Amino acid sequence: MTRELRAVEWAGDGLALIDQTALPHREVVLRVTDVDGLVDAVRRLVVRGAPAIGAAGAYGVAIALLQAEREGWDGSRIRAEVARIRAARPTAVNLAVSVDRVLARLDDGVTAVLAEAAAVQREDVEANHALGAHGADWLLKRQGEDRPLRVLTHCNTGALATAGWGTALGVIRELHARERLETVYADETRPLLQGARLTAWELAQEGIAHYVQADGAAAGTILRGEVDVAVVGADRIAANGDTANKVGTVGIALACAYAGIPFVVAAPTTTVDLATPHGDGITIELRDEAEVLEWAGVRTAPAGSRGHNPAFDVTPGGLVTALVTERGVLEVSAGELPGLHLA
Amino acid sequence: MTRELRAVEWAGDGLALIDQTALPHREVVLRVTDVDGLVDAVRRLVVRGAPAIGAAGAYGVAIALLQAEREGWDGSRIRAEVARIRAARPTAVNLAVSVDRVLARLDDGVTAVLAEAAAVQREDVEANHALGAHGADWLLKRQGEDRPLRVLTHCNTGALATAGWGTALGVIRELHARERLETVYADETRPLLQGARLTAWELAQEGIAHYVQADGAAAGTILRGEVDVAVVGADRIAANGDTANKVGTVGIALACAYAGIPFVVAAPTTTVDLATPHGDGITIELRDEAEVLEWAGVRTAPAGSRGHNPAFDVTPGGLVTALVTERGVLEVSAGELPGLHLA
Repeated sequence: MTRELRAVEWAGDGLALIDQTALPHREVVLRVTDVDGLVDAVRRLVVRGAPAIGAAGAYGVAIALLQAEREGWDGSRIRAEVARIRAARPTAVNLAVSVDRVLARLDDGVTAVLAEAAAVQREDVEANHALGAHGADWLLKRQGEDRPLRVLTHCNTGALATAGWGTALGVIRELHARERLETVYADETRPLLQGARLTAWELAQEGIAHYVQADGAAAGTILRGEVDVAVVGADRIAANGDTANKVGTVGIALACAYAGIPFVVAAPTTTVDLATPHGDGITIELRDEAEVLEWAGVRTAPAGSRGHNPAFDVTPGGLVTALVTERGVLEVSAGELPGLHLA
Repeated sequence: MTRELRAVEWAGDGLALIDQTALPHREVVLRVTDVDGLVDAVRRLVVRGAPAIGAAGAYGVAIALLQAEREGWDGSRIRAEVARIRAARPTAVNLAVSVDRVLARLDDGVTAVLAEAAAVQREDVEANHALGAHGADWLLKRQGEDRPLRVLTHCNTGALATAGWGTALGVIRELHARERLETVYADETRPLLQGARLTAWELAQEGIAHYVQADGAAAGTILRGEVDVAVVGADRIAANGDTANKVGTVGIALACAYAGIPFVVAAPTTTVDLATPHGDGITIELRDEAEVLEWAGVRTAPAGSRGHNPAFDVTPGGLVTALVTERGVLEVSAGELPGLHLA
């Protein structure tokens, strides 16, 4: 993989999305030129990862505008369609923030809208590079330089999940570039296996040594002393540091706290939602129970079983050792609250 | 399911094992009449669960003796073959304990050996019934009687995993029988889905309301207050209460401690290994990495990825609120150490 990998790319009259449901075995690009197609792609996780969804939503305003020209929508119809994009997934803050930012340029026409969406994407890539460097600096200072680090991560936070480069995976890439990375434990991330399919694919492309493990293995791997630090992304961070991220994250944070190793959240400052005082206010998306009852369309559980399928969980801010952003590192559990410092 | 379900049953000249790799879709019984077949069945998890493996190993001594008669083995060959059965899986203590107990009757002939193996199995079923009643008594006393309990469990500890009835699932059955059970959260238990396939199947047979969830969902479900108690089994318990159980267990224990709800281990006293002072001394089986890199024989991770596949983890005794045995309940984290009380 080069730095040019873009999961979300504007292609003249619509978006070109890497279909992340087909990876790692097939690299398929899906063209999206209308609102229905975009909402479907976001819901089916063709495009996923909070910053990548944010970029797709930003360009989605342009898609709605172009569709409006073709189909003769009025202003209220345009806003209704954009609202559908904005609400396609509820947990990550980036989607709503990015859509709102671009929507503010609606009256300036499609060229202005596209320029704003491109700025959203460009700024996210720049933020990720800055964030990766800050994170690596902080970790190497804290952990010392005696040996390369063994890093555990969860879900996919790489170039596929963002506008480019990655958040937690950006920190990992940076450690690798500095030759300070020994290996990565990538949780497979059930039910949709973003870790086994996407993170492992990105790591393999970079030639980074890694193990895929069951999500349930994470806590034991940490408690046995096989991991130096866990680094994860975030979908929404409340003002007190409570962090919503892919289901399974809070168990890793608890294990890190017990083992006395740092639990690091890597996310751009746009992920911090100051309007939400604490994690209880974050809506947790409940996805289709079939995702945990079936595998590749084949039922694994008995016919009579129900599924419980929250897509995210909330890690209390007190368990977040550090929040790595493009503007620096906040030691959240030590009292450096993002609500105070990033406002 | 009736109480008569037996995953392990002696059938004249060998064992009849319910093939747990085929559940929940097909109920297949595998006949095993030689040592190779038994070792293979244990390793492939045709029969799994510490007490069920113990029962199978007990009858395995009879299988070896019958095969010795057919094939003219001498005493040292018999002992070598029995040693292979004893070592077929390393983590659970029950296998070695049961084999050694029956092996002591070797010189008394096959009838005595079979009687001893049947006693191992019968005593385990009796222990499970006693254990279920003790566990339900303790939980209902502790939790009060204001409403039925919501119980989280991990892996399969039911009639399939034991000689019959179940350990953690025996407690759950007992709560259900007393009409004090609201619902069960059954972790799917990757990589082999014993929760989704086997626990859900046993619960469905009993008509017990349940949800299957991804293992990563467990900690969040607990922290959101959706669970009153977690009850799990054990493969080996060190003298200080450190508990080896299916990978993923320690993360549940950490979440229970954080949320302030009880984390209960249900296991017969034979699971306590006084010869092992603490959990560091317990061998953790590393299984084939293909289990986390493939699904039903189809590769899910990229070709270049390695897998990390510990089958168990160790929960520190300090996180075990209670150990429920057939002889009563020990409050382990409060200092009632099994090494002192069950010696």
